[in-house]
Amino acid sequence: MILTDSLLDFFLETRKHTEDICTPLEIEDYVVQPIVDVSPPKWHLGHTTWFFEEFILKTHAKGYQIFDEDFSFVFNSYYETVGKRVVRSDRGNLSRPSVQKVYDYRHYVTSAMKELFSENQNQDLHDVLEIGIHHEKQHQELLLTDIKFILGNNPLLPTYSNDFQEHPIEKQHQEWISLEEGIYEIGHNSEDFCYDNELGRHKVYLHSYEISNKLVTNQEYIDFISAGGYKKFDLWHAEGWDWVLKNKIEAPLYWHDINGDWHYYSLKGLQKVELDAPITHISYFEAFAFAQWKGCRLPTEFEWEAAQRFFPWGKRWEWTESAYLPYPNYTKADGALGEYNGKFMVNQKVLRGGSVATPIKHTRSTYRNFFQTNLRWQFTGFRLAK
Amino acid sequence: MILTDSLLDFFLETRKHTEDICTPLEIEDYVVQPIVDVSPPKWHLGHTTWFFEEFILKTHAKGYQIFDEDFSFVFNSYYETVGKRVVRSDRGNLSRPSVQKVYDYRHYVTSAMKELFSENQNQDLHDVLEIGIHHEKQHQELLLTDIKFILGNNPLLPTYSNDFQEHPIEKQHQEWISLEEGIYEIGHNSEDFCYDNELGRHKVYLHSYEISNKLVTNQEYIDFISAGGYKKFDLWHAEGWDWVLKNKIEAPLYWHDINGDWHYYSLKGLQKVELDAPITHISYFEAFAFAQWKGCRLPTEFEWEAAQRFFPWGKRWEWTESAYLPYPNYTKADGALGEYNGKFMVNQKVLRGGSVATPIKHTRSTYRNFFQTNLRWQFTGFRLAK
Amino acid sequence: MILTDSLLDFFLETRKHTEDICTPLEIEDYVVQPIVDVSPPKWHLGHTTWFFEEFILKTHAKGYQIFDEDFSFVFNSYYETVGKRVVRSDRGNLSRPSVQKVYDYRHYVTSAMKELFSENQNQDLHDVLEIGIHHEKQHQELLLTDIKFILGNNPLLPTYSNDFQEHPIEKQHQEWISLEEGIYEIGHNSEDFCYDNELGRHKVYLHSYEISNKLVTNQEYIDFISAGGYKKFDLWHAEGWDWVLKNKIEAPLYWHDINGDWHYYSLKGLQKVELDAPITHISYFEAFAFAQWKGCRLPTEFEWEAAQRFFPWGKRWEWTESAYLPYPNYTKADGALGEYNGKFMVNQKVLRGGSVATPIKHTRSTYRNFFQTNLRWQFTGFRLAK
Amino acid sequence: MILTDSLLDFFLETRKHTEDICTPLEIEDYVVQPIVDVSPPKWHLGHTTWFFEEFILKTHAKGYQIFDEDFSFVFNSYYETVGKRVVRSDRGNLSRPSVQKVYDYRHYVTSAMKELFSENQNQDLHDVLEIGIHHEKQHQELLLTDIKFILGNNPLLPTYSNDFQEHPIEKQHQEWISLEEGIYEIGHNSEDFCYDNELGRHKVYLHSYEISNKLVTNQEYIDFISAGGYKKFDLWHAEGWDWVLKNKIEAPLYWHDINGDWHYYSLKGLQKVELDAPITHISYFEAFAFAQWKGCRLPTEFEWEAAQRFFPWGKRWEWTESAYLPYPNYTKADGALGEYNGKFMVNQKVLRGGSVATPIKHTRSTYRNFFQTNLRWQFTGFRLAK
Repeated sequence: MILTDSLLDFFLETRKHTEDICTPLEIEDYVVQPIVDVSPPKWHLGHTTWFFEEFILKTHAKGYQIFDEDFSFVFNSYYETVGKRVVRSDRGNLSRPSVQKVYDYRHYVTSAMKELFSENQNQDLHDVLEIGIHHEKQHQELLLTDIKFILGNNPLLPTYSNDFQEHPIEKQHQEWISLEEGIYEIGHNSEDFCYDNELGRHKVYLHSYEISNKLVTNQEYIDFISAGGYKKFDLWHAEGWDWVLKNKIEAPLYWHDINGDWHYYSLKGLQKVELDAPITHISYFEAFAFAQWKGCRLPTEFEWEAAQRFFPWGKRWEWTESAYLPYPNYTKADGALGEYNGKFMVNQKVLRGGSVATPIKHTRSTYRNFFQTNLRWQFTGFRLAK
Repeated sequence: MILTDSLLDFFLETRKHTEDICTPLEIEDYVVQPIVDVSPPKWHLGHTTWFFEEFILKTHAKGYQIFDEDFSFVFNSYYETVGKRVVRSDRGNLSRPSVQKVYDYRHYVTSAMKELFSENQNQDLHDVLEIGIHHEKQHQELLLTDIKFILGNNPLLPTYSNDFQEHPIEKQHQEWISLEEGIYEIGHNSEDFCYDNELGRHKVYLHSYEISNKLVTNQEYIDFISAGGYKKFDLWHAEGWDWVLKNKIEAPLYWHDINGDWHYYSLKGLQKVELDAPITHISYFEAFAFAQWKGCRLPTEFEWEAAQRFFPWGKRWEWTESAYLPYPNYTKADGALGEYNGKFMVNQKVLRGGSVATPIKHTRSTYRNFFQTNLRWQFTGFRLAK
Repeated sequence: MILTDSLLDFFLETRKHTEDICTPLEIEDYVVQPIVDVSPPKWHLGHTTWFFEEFILKTHAKGYQIFDEDFSFVFNSYYETVGKRVVRSDRGNLSRPSVQKVYDYRHYVTSAMKELFSENQNQDLHDVLEIGIHHEKQHQELLLTDIKFILGNNPLLPTYSNDFQEHPIEKQHQEWISLEEGIYEIGHNSEDFCYDNELGRHKVYLHSYEISNKLVTNQEYIDFISAGGYKKFDLWHAEGWDWVLKNKIEAPLYWHDINGDWHYYSLKGLQKVELDAPITHISYFEAFAFAQWKGCRLPTEFEWEAAQRFFPWGKRWEWTESAYLPYPNYTKADGALGEYNGKFMVNQKVLRGGSVATPIKHTRSTYRNFFQTNLRWQFTGFRLAK
Repeated sequence: MILTDSLLDFFLETRKHTEDICTPLEIEDYVVQPIVDVSPPKWHLGHTTWFFEEFILKTHAKGYQIFDEDFSFVFNSYYETVGKRVVRSDRGNLSRPSVQKVYDYRHYVTSAMKELFSENQNQDLHDVLEIGIHHEKQHQELLLTDIKFILGNNPLLPTYSNDFQEHPIEKQHQEWISLEEGIYEIGHNSEDFCYDNELGRHKVYLHSYEISNKLVTNQEYIDFISAGGYKKFDLWHAEGWDWVLKNKIEAPLYWHDINGDWHYYSLKGLQKVELDAPITHISYFEAFAFAQWKGCRLPTEFEWEAAQRFFPWGKRWEWTESAYLPYPNYTKADGALGEYNGKFMVNQKVLRGGSVATPIKHTRSTYRNFFQTNLRWQFTGFRLAK
């Protein structure tokens, strides 16, 4: 396969979209890191750029001049293969390079990539380029959720944009989709791009189960809160209960009880909770406790994948009961790209679906997202099974 | 089913065995708690006794006088249903009740139980009694490994007993047992006792695999160390690598490099590492890194259970790749006993088999042990799969 | 000066008194360390013994056989000169050496010292021997207050002894002793023993001041609590206020509010607070806040020393406003004994007087005790000045 | 005293100087907080402004409209009297209000103050206004040292300004100034402005002493390092030694060993250490250890004040041996302004002099600066006494 014009378009459109996400920001918003899980927006801008410089331009672009030797140190993330890096918790302590300098870096690298496209039609580049583009799309989602955290954590609760529709109203009747016991095929099954963790299509045996046609809504979650859900230890995992107590958790992230009315911070600013919208910004621990309370459970990722064509999805990343583990015959890629997925396959849960923050063309029915069980800053949600 | 004499024998023999384990101890050894995962021996003695008092005598023994009202507070563990409790990390701060008082408590409760047996043949008691006995057997294993930690952590490295054979020599040739792709049945399948987490026998689909006939040995593990296994980040999970760096891990727990020779603390005292003995006291992270280094992997718990009749096992708890999750149709028991297993089903790994510290009649091929991925004070080990 | 029989008597009486303090203990009480500031009683027994072995017997007793080479490691405290040591926070993790073994060690060393006395009348030994005895007396006070903490921290609140009178009733009328402005001489002024930090008698200029004839009582302190003393930030140092909030301090150490009545744990067990007894187990932060509330202040150590002959003292160590600093011309002794006092002369406050736990002959009007501003487990108290 | 034009000039010149300090900054530099002791520059700009709004305009300017109600919450510092505040460690997490908005706030308040001057000549305002100006001058020094930390902590080591002369060369011969034993008067002694902690001029008795004519230099400090000063525990306080070990301290803050040559980060960027310049960015612990090594000591603040007219000073804040304590008859002001000094009078050391970062008219011979013993980001230094 050679590098096609459509791949170039895909690349350029991706580069542009990242910058579009930042349009509403003040320069100050690019810099801060209120919690360790969040990265400063300028770091995302630099890191996604560094990926192309490090893995493509340095090795394949004849005569390429590195933009700044120090950036490799500043914008490397977890790629231990490639050298030293700023520890994650220090990203928000760096005022330099300036935002302008980071944009200069982006444009310099984007131009060099365009030039490389025009000169080098080497198909060897195809795979790493495709990963680079998808890597940047993945960061677009983090970029947006990190921006939300930066603004939503600020006592002034500034608005990001009045156009962003976080909360699709889903006034759906509750129905249960039944699937029969038997062997199902799981995993990626086409020529299109996917990550290594989806490969190795294989059989699993599922017992008969039912899965909800809809996501759990704010109204249902408020009922759980009102029924004392955060105060009944027997609904929770032991580790979840410790997390509730230690962090004094009483509601989803971004929720504020204002004179007895639930409000939440959205990218449009503070607003009243819409009862029919699907719940979001909850941890796995909370999803699990809710399911216990309902006498149901969360689906496994296999149950979700086998049933997904029977219900709409894509507005919330959906917590599953499955631990993030390798599929049979999973093999880690060599070198730095091998650090992409495999090394996180312990003590995390799989999420399926996609969210309002997921860029187009960046999810599919076999996509396996994963997070630690206490994290809430993504647009997470869940549906029930039984 | 009525309460039989053999159940009484089983009960009495179990009570006695717990005390036998403590025979070599000084009074001082009963008291300390060098790390939070370890409980003081006197706490084990009291807690296993409290279980019978709380769940059987209080409710079923007519006219039973509680031994000491405060003991419910002191010896409760994680049973939040039953009231307040001494937080786990404080157990080693309590010099009272004295060891003698705890033994008095044991004998008082054992006697009351014998009396109850002679008077009450109510079959309703059978299940909770059986759980109580198995609960105590489970604590016998912890008791012994906690004693090992208490002594092995002491700079004087005192001997527990010269008779305890920790390290069975297994000079076995490496062979690979092959299993065919297909549907296998997993889970408990008899009238005998088992825990709720083994119930719900169900089908899983396994792809063809090979599993080692033998446990990984000290010699093989020394080769891993010598090859720089603890220094190569790409063999480790990201979380495992952080654990290695933060805790400066360079060898299994209890190993000492004395002038270039590996020694380890065993219940017999310090001795040279026996090269043909199976490795033990390693974390899941270490087992995984070793497997990566060998180009193999750990078996899943299903692969282990399906293959277990083809190889000897029972000297080491064997780490598997499987996360500790509920089987299909798992349901938590009501009340305090429901806290037994279900609430730990997150962020832990399953271990299969049994160990030199496991009391007889306390393991079986479907038994699911579970620990966090960094823990090492149990007699853990592993075998490879591919 | 040669080693006299009276010094031998002083030595033997001191050795015996340490053991007498432990008479009411169970073996288990010797082992635990509920907070880092507290040492296990058996550690005190061993450490005071090790001092004589290390600084006298090893160097001066011909043919002396060290009792156990490992004990130097186990019972060394802060003497970095002398080699490695068990870190302070680990003392409670050691079940061995056993209590019996530690007593054997004590008796072995005491005997060897007696023998040394009979053979060696070298006056060079006089000074280090005297320090060793006073060192052990100092530990007697810590031993008793550590025992109190071990028992008082236990939910069973066991009694130490019904004979120990912690709380002398001082029904005294409040009077103010006035001292005139002028030059006062401060510091040790006799041939008797004192520590190096009291030496260098020197002049200080004091402005006229008044100092209370009596210690602040429980009744006065209860008034402070009732007036919201623990809730008014402006009474506290910034660091004290943080301490109150972080540790949720609402009363002195060992106080329990039982149905609206203040009780406290004493060595006699739990009892009602005696209103006329002097307050104890309060931190410097609390003493300071109380004084602010009263519109008074704490005296400096110089004011205390200049006035001490006008009021009774010796039941409570009294917090002063003075930081623990060297007197003019203070010089640190060479070697390990130089570590005794000088290296603590930063970020601590001076306490003057003595307490019900202070052994006889172990305090004097120039004695300078010192602790960090948050510590409460000693029998601390205070008097006001203005 | 009425509000004079010269006071207005002093006010306006001070307001302007704060902004001048920020001229070289990028917007990003205003936002970050790499350690908790450092505040973001925009916080200093806002906080010094809030002080005038809160304590003068709100109460004295008729018809004054508060700029933004939320700013009281954002820019309050430690004034617990005045209401809730952003906790110190969170200041660097706030991207909003933007830098531009903070400048708008400054100009709005400066204008309102000018107007107030022209209308209200009430002498009651004089004292709080004077404190407000000196408060802002104090923050100018912190602003500059915080900027230095923000830039010097960045791996890119950006230059602040090529004109800032941090390191005055003092090639002075070592001489010792002798002062005689006797009574000296200490404390503020004029009509000019001073803080409350300098008031209460009083007598102290000093024994004869010698004090160095010069500050300790880089060359002398390098000799200390070369002699193993950071490795000899007996030179350090126990708490200082723990600090060295825990933080792996091996040189002053901002020092880099580049191929065996000592360099340091200054506001001009990275440069070689100038051997004759006075050492700076060292903690009290380091100053004390150096003095021990030299067989000298640090002067007390009284010795310093009594001798200060015999030597040049003002380039380094000089650590003294004195704890920060109230002078005799010190009384805290009422209300929020009473929080200014008194509540820090525990566990800190006094520094005397002034530094290259101290604005003109902001120090004097009786000025008492104070910091915790481990802090290094100010332009600290020291001179020896004996």
